[in-house]
Amino acid sequence: MSAHEFSPDEIDAVYRAIAARRDMRHFIERAVDADVLARLLAAAHRAPSVGYMQPWRFIRVVDRGLRSRLRDLVENERQRTAVALGEAGNRFMQLKIDGLDRCGEVLVVALTDGRSRHVFGRRTMPEMDLASAACAIQNMWLAARAEGLGMGWVSMFEPADVAALFDMPDGARPIAILCLGHVDAFYDRPMLEAEGWAERLDLERLVGRDGWPVPDTRET
Amino acid sequence: MSAHEFSPDEIDAVYRAIAARRDMRHFIERAVDADVLARLLAAAHRAPSVGYMQPWRFIRVVDRGLRSRLRDLVENERQRTAVALGEAGNRFMQLKIDGLDRCGEVLVVALTDGRSRHVFGRRTMPEMDLASAACAIQNMWLAARAEGLGMGWVSMFEPADVAALFDMPDGARPIAILCLGHVDAFYDRPMLEAEGWAERLDLERLVGRDGWPVPDTRET
Repeated sequence: MSAHEFSPDEIDAVYRAIAARRDMRHFIERAVDADVLARLLAAAHRAPSVGYMQPWRFIRVVDRGLRSRLRDLVENERQRTAVALGEAGNRFMQLKIDGLDRCGEVLVVALTDGRSRHVFGRRTMPEMDLASAACAIQNMWLAARAEGLGMGWVSMFEPADVAALFDMPDGARPIAILCLGHVDAFYDRPMLEAEGWAERLDLERLVGRDGWPVPDTRET
Repeated sequence: MSAHEFSPDEIDAVYRAIAARRDMRHFIERAVDADVLARLLAAAHRAPSVGYMQPWRFIRVVDRGLRSRLRDLVENERQRTAVALGEAGNRFMQLKIDGLDRCGEVLVVALTDGRSRHVFGRRTMPEMDLASAACAIQNMWLAARAEGLGMGWVSMFEPADVAALFDMPDGARPIAILCLGHVDAFYDRPMLEAEGWAERLDLERLVGRDGWPVPDTRET
């Protein structure tokens, strides 16, 4: 086995983390160890980024007042989303959509200011810095799961309001409120699947050979 | 140890995959095992997605003519990027920016059509489906690394041209050309770092407490 090779057990562990990771909304009130948090942030920073721009910025929200105002912003958007969903709004309002009430750590992730300087791999698709930051968050998510911590990505907020709350520089853009913390148990399957909100799509219908997969996969 | 817990060795394996994953551009000509490819796609499909919309669609590009036309589209954008980079254009042209010449598999990843139906978590940030698809790609990347395969994400193309090449439905949007395959060796560090294009930023300067991190981190 070469130094670059992973053992069968190591390969299994990576797949296990991928399969067992969940978008968590239910936490127990318990602090996250500072060393663990540091490892998770370091894992995020190991993500690939377009043109190596490393666009991710993190705000650790410790102040209780700030956390409370952040919760208010999420609640506002939750109400607006329910209206926008029309008939499905009532069902939606019964879902728990964030863990800000109890999670041990809250991290706001934002794309940095000064992004327009970075052209490499972004000339036609400037949104690629978001893709890079999402890879960073996924790294963190998988590492957290391995460490036994749950994490949830809340995207239900008005970005301008969150940017204002933390006095972000012009051009910076918040993309995630991450709830991180200890959990009683991880969901056996995605919460929205368990709640009957949506079903897992059939992977075979999402993969095409030399062309688009089976049309209208979303209609069935 | 509870059934949900990871052993220390498993935790290490997850961190190892995160640290050893590289955005690869150099491949050797050798086929990717069909079973491995299936596992990698299944890993991608395990990603989180906003409102459980599972927006990712994959096109496996097998036809040599299609692959060649895809390479032409990347080359066109490479030339345009060099112009857009101005003074840095010459240095840029010396970088290898894709592995389409030799990699065993080429996968085009696209966001599905019909995205406007999905409001959950996207009302204020419709681009969150890209974030979900990026998480799927990161899953695949880490699993590929564990399996000993390299992967590279090429975002240097005009999305409309790639959509046309594969006759994608209205509203679908290609976000990645993934080059996947066997490699002689993984880069010890990110290629763009080794080539002196950019340096890894200091993580401490990317993390703020209750506010934006040290200002102007990108200026130094």
